[in-house]
Amino acid sequence: MKVAYKIWIDQDGKAFGDGPYELLRGVERTGSLHRAAEEMGMAYSKAWKLLRTVEQRLGFPLLDRKVGGLSGGGSRITRQAKEFLARYGRFREEVKDSVENIYRRHFTPFQRTRKRAMNG
Amino acid sequence: MKVAYKIWIDQDGKAFGDGPYELLRGVERTGSLHRAAEEMGMAYSKAWKLLRTVEQRLGFPLLDRKVGGLSGGGSRITRQAKEFLARYGRFREEVKDSVENIYRRHFTPFQRTRKRAMNG
Repeated sequence: MKVAYKIWIDQDGKAFGDGPYELLRGVERTGSLHRAAEEMGMAYSKAWKLLRTVEQRLGFPLLDRKVGGLSGGGSRITRQAKEFLARYGRFREEVKDSVENIYRRHFTPFQRTRKRAMNG
Repeated sequence: MKVAYKIWIDQDGKAFGDGPYELLRGVERTGSLHRAAEEMGMAYSKAWKLLRTVEQRLGFPLLDRKVGGLSGGGSRITRQAKEFLARYGRFREEVKDSVENIYRRHFTPFQRTRKRAMNG
């Protein structure tokens, strides 16, 4: 037995969760939405649409687009996106610790009883 | 902007979450799985199958079935189910408080900035 959950930020529907978080971290790391999408096994068109929806719901731009050029272009996340990602990363980490802690506190005694009952 | 989540207990798949919790609380209150399912707008057959799956995954019986009789029968939850529900209820309450608290702590400053930016 273990605890599981999905968490997201809602703003007129699902606005931001682990999917966009990982995708934007990928853009930050690789400098390319193409590459970030590929790493997640996500079609580029899907990744692009996802970020457009997130931008609309959060109300600020996520990507500074640099199109063309010898390098073949690329993407960079905005300052606001960077701050938001840092915030979400800490939020997510704390929720994980807290949920697991609360789960353990309430269900460890129960699991002990259960194990004893199952072993006869 | 607000936080949203779904949480459940996993044991070879989704084993127990808010759906079974509400359903079993309904059985406890009404003394009838029929009535409890109806109150949730759930087909009796679906409710029955759901509880059977939960019983298999958690590994203990949830319902003492009293079939037939002048009263038309009814259902009563087991002592183990009662204890589990109490545990889950407290767990769920604490998770809710904690998640909302963590969300506020991380995102209130952000929302203030955002509001200022939107109002010019």
